[in-house]
Amino acid sequence: MGQVSWKGLFLSLFDYKTEKYVIAKNKKVGILYRVVQLSILAYLVGWVFVVKKGYQDTDTSLQSSVITKLKGVAFTNTSELGERLWDVADYVIPPQGENVFFVMTNLIVTPNQRQTTCPESVSIPDALCDEDEDCPAGQAVVAGNGVKTGRCLRDRDSIRGSCEVLAWCPVEKRSKPKKPLLASAENLTVFIKNSIRFPKFKFSKMNVLATNNESYLKSCHYSTEHPYCPIFLLGNIVRWAGNDFQEMALEGGVIGIQIEWNCDLDKAPSECNPHYSFSRLDNKFAEKSVSSGYNFRFAKYYRDAEGTEYRTLFKAYGIRFDVMVNGKAGKFNIIPTVINIGSGLALMGAGAFFCDLVLLYLIKKSNFYRGKKYEEVKSSSRKSLTSPTLNGSQSPEQLDRL
Amino acid sequence: MGQVSWKGLFLSLFDYKTEKYVIAKNKKVGILYRVVQLSILAYLVGWVFVVKKGYQDTDTSLQSSVITKLKGVAFTNTSELGERLWDVADYVIPPQGENVFFVMTNLIVTPNQRQTTCPESVSIPDALCDEDEDCPAGQAVVAGNGVKTGRCLRDRDSIRGSCEVLAWCPVEKRSKPKKPLLASAENLTVFIKNSIRFPKFKFSKMNVLATNNESYLKSCHYSTEHPYCPIFLLGNIVRWAGNDFQEMALEGGVIGIQIEWNCDLDKAPSECNPHYSFSRLDNKFAEKSVSSGYNFRFAKYYRDAEGTEYRTLFKAYGIRFDVMVNGKAGKFNIIPTVINIGSGLALMGAGAFFCDLVLLYLIKKSNFYRGKKYEEVKSSSRKSLTSPTLNGSQSPEQLDRL
Amino acid sequence: MGQVSWKGLFLSLFDYKTEKYVIAKNKKVGILYRVVQLSILAYLVGWVFVVKKGYQDTDTSLQSSVITKLKGVAFTNTSELGERLWDVADYVIPPQGENVFFVMTNLIVTPNQRQTTCPESVSIPDALCDEDEDCPAGQAVVAGNGVKTGRCLRDRDSIRGSCEVLAWCPVEKRSKPKKPLLASAENLTVFIKNSIRFPKFKFSKMNVLATNNESYLKSCHYSTEHPYCPIFLLGNIVRWAGNDFQEMALEGGVIGIQIEWNCDLDKAPSECNPHYSFSRLDNKFAEKSVSSGYNFRFAKYYRDAEGTEYRTLFKAYGIRFDVMVNGKAGKFNIIPTVINIGSGLALMGAGAFFCDLVLLYLIKKSNFYRGKKYEEVKSSSRKSLTSPTLNGSQSPEQLDRL
Repeated sequence: MGQVSWKGLFLSLFDYKTEKYVIAKNKKVGILYRVVQLSILAYLVGWVFVVKKGYQDTDTSLQSSVITKLKGVAFTNTSELGERLWDVADYVIPPQGENVFFVMTNLIVTPNQRQTTCPESVSIPDALCDEDEDCPAGQAVVAGNGVKTGRCLRDRDSIRGSCEVLAWCPVEKRSKPKKPLLASAENLTVFIKNSIRFPKFKFSKMNVLATNNESYLKSCHYSTEHPYCPIFLLGNIVRWAGNDFQEMALEGGVIGIQIEWNCDLDKAPSECNPHYSFSRLDNKFAEKSVSSGYNFRFAKYYRDAEGTEYRTLFKAYGIRFDVMVNGKAGKFNIIPTVINIGSGLALMGAGAFFCDLVLLYLIKKSNFYRGKKYEEVKSSSRKSLTSPTLNGSQSPEQLDRL
Repeated sequence: MGQVSWKGLFLSLFDYKTEKYVIAKNKKVGILYRVVQLSILAYLVGWVFVVKKGYQDTDTSLQSSVITKLKGVAFTNTSELGERLWDVADYVIPPQGENVFFVMTNLIVTPNQRQTTCPESVSIPDALCDEDEDCPAGQAVVAGNGVKTGRCLRDRDSIRGSCEVLAWCPVEKRSKPKKPLLASAENLTVFIKNSIRFPKFKFSKMNVLATNNESYLKSCHYSTEHPYCPIFLLGNIVRWAGNDFQEMALEGGVIGIQIEWNCDLDKAPSECNPHYSFSRLDNKFAEKSVSSGYNFRFAKYYRDAEGTEYRTLFKAYGIRFDVMVNGKAGKFNIIPTVINIGSGLALMGAGAFFCDLVLLYLIKKSNFYRGKKYEEVKSSSRKSLTSPTLNGSQSPEQLDRL
Repeated sequence: MGQVSWKGLFLSLFDYKTEKYVIAKNKKVGILYRVVQLSILAYLVGWVFVVKKGYQDTDTSLQSSVITKLKGVAFTNTSELGERLWDVADYVIPPQGENVFFVMTNLIVTPNQRQTTCPESVSIPDALCDEDEDCPAGQAVVAGNGVKTGRCLRDRDSIRGSCEVLAWCPVEKRSKPKKPLLASAENLTVFIKNSIRFPKFKFSKMNVLATNNESYLKSCHYSTEHPYCPIFLLGNIVRWAGNDFQEMALEGGVIGIQIEWNCDLDKAPSECNPHYSFSRLDNKFAEKSVSSGYNFRFAKYYRDAEGTEYRTLFKAYGIRFDVMVNGKAGKFNIIPTVINIGSGLALMGAGAFFCDLVLLYLIKKSNFYRGKKYEEVKSSSRKSLTSPTLNGSQSPEQLDRL
């Protein structure tokens, strides 16, 4: 007999159990439920799957390598420097062609600086003095160029003087330039080579067209007509970022070149193309604030015949270009698909729950339906007879089903 | 009585309601349902949880700091430069040891350039001329080195001449080198120190072994036998990237050193180790295209006794190494676990729906089961008596259940 | 009649079908179910939605641009270099102000190096020799400065000599400095400008306060009282990273400046503020290991009157600062909300399944409830009469429901 019961148990494993439904012939709730179902279905198919591509696994952490190369020369003729030609080795810093590069457009040159003593610039408040006591020896000038020696230097006819400092002398003059020196940097071109890789999908691509037409890559310039040409006119980049090149060249700035790879890897690799956008990064909030403009100082060091070091200090204004690459690749994957379908189905359950509420509490004959949906069973301890009591007079228990 | 009803309502809150099921003694559908259930379970456990670690929260945005340090010297003996030894300060650009570094392997040197006038290189098409009119003064030479002065310079016996330009003179000769100058750069080593941090899990690690054995780190070289030694031979890196060092040294190139951290933080931290891979980044598509190779120009500036500036222009060919770090860390988290279990359960609901379809429409006795599953109730407005009608003759309503 | 049946079918589409429930008047299981429900609800609301913001879509791949600018001078007075003032152009490498910058704090200078032959440093094991045979010509010294010429140079009174090498001579002396040269670099300040953008939400922000008060930005220093001032004292940064500046200045190191943007874009943009943290990146594991400290070599090249190149080699010790920006932005999105609600509801189903198990197998009257929940139907092929058999004597089939 034990064997029989085990066999029965095993066989019953393969009985199919299906939920029992009550059909409420109520068209209002029926239509409501259909509407809810269709809405969820439309949301699931239209928004989650078509628009948001919810069936795809996405990779947003891409590896990217950027090579930049500038081309062009600029000619200047100033009283200070005379006729001078600037080529790539002169105006690009650093020269290596990485993803961040700086093009010098303006310059304050302070030549022949040597380590000695000289008067500090009078434009620095902390260096102003009336007598030697105002210049305690050994104290660094706040926001200045050197260390005070203890002497106050004064021109014959001026009332206030400035402290003598030990510094690279003569110190830099604080005169902001009136117009950009290398105004013609507008016509320089930059070739941006970007190769990316989505490690999750092992997918690589480059922004340079796989073309046999070499001359195209030598002559084209990026524009809306040539969206896949990786050669950019600096002037255009600045204009597309919403700025005026000449104005920006004067005090410098930072331009972001965003390269966006938004790839649907379920399609052909040739449809995965970069999209370029340009924006100014430095002065979002204030026109004339301390945070606008871009400049830095560097020096070239020389030795004279006696071996003494001297240098030329450059305060370089210019435009820094940050090539920033970001991207997203999506590819069909069963897990997000299942998650989205699953949660969509669960949402249907919530819809059914909502319609149940309407059916059981909000319509006229709700009492009747409540009795049909819920079948009360009670096992009295006195009598073991099992009487399923189906009645229509129950308290509102549906509310607490969830 | 109101009190009684409220009490009843409260008590009924703790009645347990359970769905009523119909047992269909149909082994075919029963087995089908079991198979569907097992498939979903296997998918959930095997794929989602074991393979894809669906119970883990992942962090893919890691912070990384890379320090690189090259070691070694290279000796060259050329007619131009004589015997010369190159050390780290000579061939590494920039010297700081960041995540992108360039090792010079070839060089075109143009010494003693000064700002003056000279003939433009005859290899530039735009500079060729027959007479002075071909060289409008002030016009920059396209893809050239300077600005035309208006004169056409011609050798006595040649037919065509080239425009005179204001430039850094003499201009660079466009002769591509035949063999790499620093061929022995193959034997240089680079020490790559990489420390990472997953901010979401506050987990930090370094690629340098926490060993007390200092001499190991001074003598080891990365290879399959020493997977955790962070010292690499440049020649090996290039070979592992599928290239020939000598060939690549000639015209330069870019090698990506990918460091991948794929960490399961549910395990011990010592099992979170970097994995290195190497690939060439510059010429994916074309062997001889404009986009292959890597070179840039830089100059060293000098002053002569009179203070006039002159420079030596270098066109440096070489290999740029981009150390790119990416990683993913996973750690148990209740939310993705619940999402995955939840959507797995919802999927079971979809499986039950599919089996219902089979039971109610596709098998022989589907009509009978349809009647059992659905219990039609109709409240006629004429008679208020409630008669549950269980019958087996319904229209196919199951299809529209979902 | 076909028409009638199609119409019936169509109308039946709008019948509402609702699951039939059995009310088990068992308070124990009822209370258990309520507790399970409340736990799930609390988890869903409290943890998933309030703490983890599960209703938000997140973007962790941000675009970031960093501009750094150092200010200040340092004065040194050593026997080697005499009185010397160091300004920004001297001690910052590279000068451009990118997100990684190096401040020199210590220095080994080897002036007037020329390409010639000289004895290799005796501190290099591979260069020690007793006779000329120990120095095979043309072999590079391992971890040394040049290529052996084949001669062994010995001082008169010393037993062992060192090989003569072709190198930049004289070679660098391997004397580690005792105290940092630019100890006063502690008082330098760095201005860090960081502008970020979350591409998914098209949200941009800068870490510089949008204030009209320019003087605030000129005088403030970052501290707990001024959390939004972007100007940092180097000494403070190192201290906050848990290190002593003077100690670190001696042998160098790498400090990470993490800027974290954790933005809830459902709130006002002004509540999205950066959070700074500081950590040392180079010597996590070993105090005196090969991997601690940070230094690199670079050279300044000069030409003498005859045009021969010579150089000054610098071994620069110092602190590299890596500004690392990471961030996360969250914004309400319907998809993760639905996924989380959906999986929460599915979890409720799992809770109901668990309570079913208790009801049907673990309590005293489980047999009775089992009979109520499952309604066995069997279509015997002999008689077509449909008799729903509701009885209480079934085998434990509930276990295999899921």
